[in-house]
Amino acid sequence: MNRIGILGSGRVATVLATRLATAGHDVMIGTRNVAGTSAKWTGPAVTFAAPPQTAREASLIINATPGDTSLERLAALREVLDGKILVDVSNATRRGAEGLPAGLSYPDSSLAEHLQHALPGTRVVKTLNTMLFSVMVNPRGLTHPPTAFLSGNDEGAKATVRQLLHDLGWPPEWIEDLGDISTARGAEALILLVPHLLRGRGFAPFALTVAR
Amino acid sequence: MNRIGILGSGRVATVLATRLATAGHDVMIGTRNVAGTSAKWTGPAVTFAAPPQTAREASLIINATPGDTSLERLAALREVLDGKILVDVSNATRRGAEGLPAGLSYPDSSLAEHLQHALPGTRVVKTLNTMLFSVMVNPRGLTHPPTAFLSGNDEGAKATVRQLLHDLGWPPEWIEDLGDISTARGAEALILLVPHLLRGRGFAPFALTVAR
Repeated sequence: MNRIGILGSGRVATVLATRLATAGHDVMIGTRNVAGTSAKWTGPAVTFAAPPQTAREASLIINATPGDTSLERLAALREVLDGKILVDVSNATRRGAEGLPAGLSYPDSSLAEHLQHALPGTRVVKTLNTMLFSVMVNPRGLTHPPTAFLSGNDEGAKATVRQLLHDLGWPPEWIEDLGDISTARGAEALILLVPHLLRGRGFAPFALTVAR
Repeated sequence: MNRIGILGSGRVATVLATRLATAGHDVMIGTRNVAGTSAKWTGPAVTFAAPPQTAREASLIINATPGDTSLERLAALREVLDGKILVDVSNATRRGAEGLPAGLSYPDSSLAEHLQHALPGTRVVKTLNTMLFSVMVNPRGLTHPPTAFLSGNDEGAKATVRQLLHDLGWPPEWIEDLGDISTARGAEALILLVPHLLRGRGFAPFALTVAR
């Protein structure tokens, strides 16, 4: 991996950028508000740029934009994402009461499949969308081992994402390769449980996991 | 709980009937083929009857019929299920290659919600549909603790089902009450992961679980 681009400026983008920069990666945050995002930044050294420049300069791009806006935003970057790996960690949901997810934007399909279809020259890998954001970069912080699911059509891209997960703190035995990009449908559907888990216990860290 | 009725004659019905009868319950298996099912039975003492008689004579009925047929079968039992607790442990899916689940029968909804709507006088509780059948009656057999999700509108019915889960070997701290029956949508969507888990490791016991 050379430069890692992270699209988004919310909590997910922030924790991933912080952890990857701390692990020694060259991280560029792609945001539509470069001045505002960089002014508020308190983490380790990263660079900031508009999304198209970020996609152009990075070899691996992480989608941490709100999932219900991702397809439109990323389809607009089709040319600069060509030949790149796109790691999609987002959840595409309709918003319900209290801003919590109320339903899937793509029932009977998935955002990841739509992204792969819209970006045929990009190797899309779905992962990390099945847990509270803090667990993405601190999987050992839970009492029981969480699962990081992987879905994608390209084995080489999935191998690169396994290395990325290693750098985020994930041991290989906690990574579960589900198969091609259509398997993201199962991983994305897990978001339907999340509002009920949050209602029960607040923002206590959790990850939806395969116990064996 | 007085008599427990179990509708179905497959692996799920068999393991549940065996375990509950062994735990001392009066179990009646409701099947459309009483002679064939009872002739093949090798487990502890249970009784066999047609589904309507089973629903009439039991106070709690477990739906272990194939989920894609359950709505039609159970709606036909509306009168005899009135006032009863119906524990739905099934998954309603379309069949794909190799007979594995290929999609939800009720995307953007759930079988449990359809059952509750079709059976307004019955208290429907969804549980145990998120694991290999063997784990339903042997949750301590996994290396890491599994989760039994609960969804239902009636708190009294859920309390009764917690007792049933206790008799199946589930400690209370592994039971996660998601909320009303509409939350079964999340639990039922987990079946989308199952074919990919089975493809990877065969019929090794597993349960989809919340790691915290």
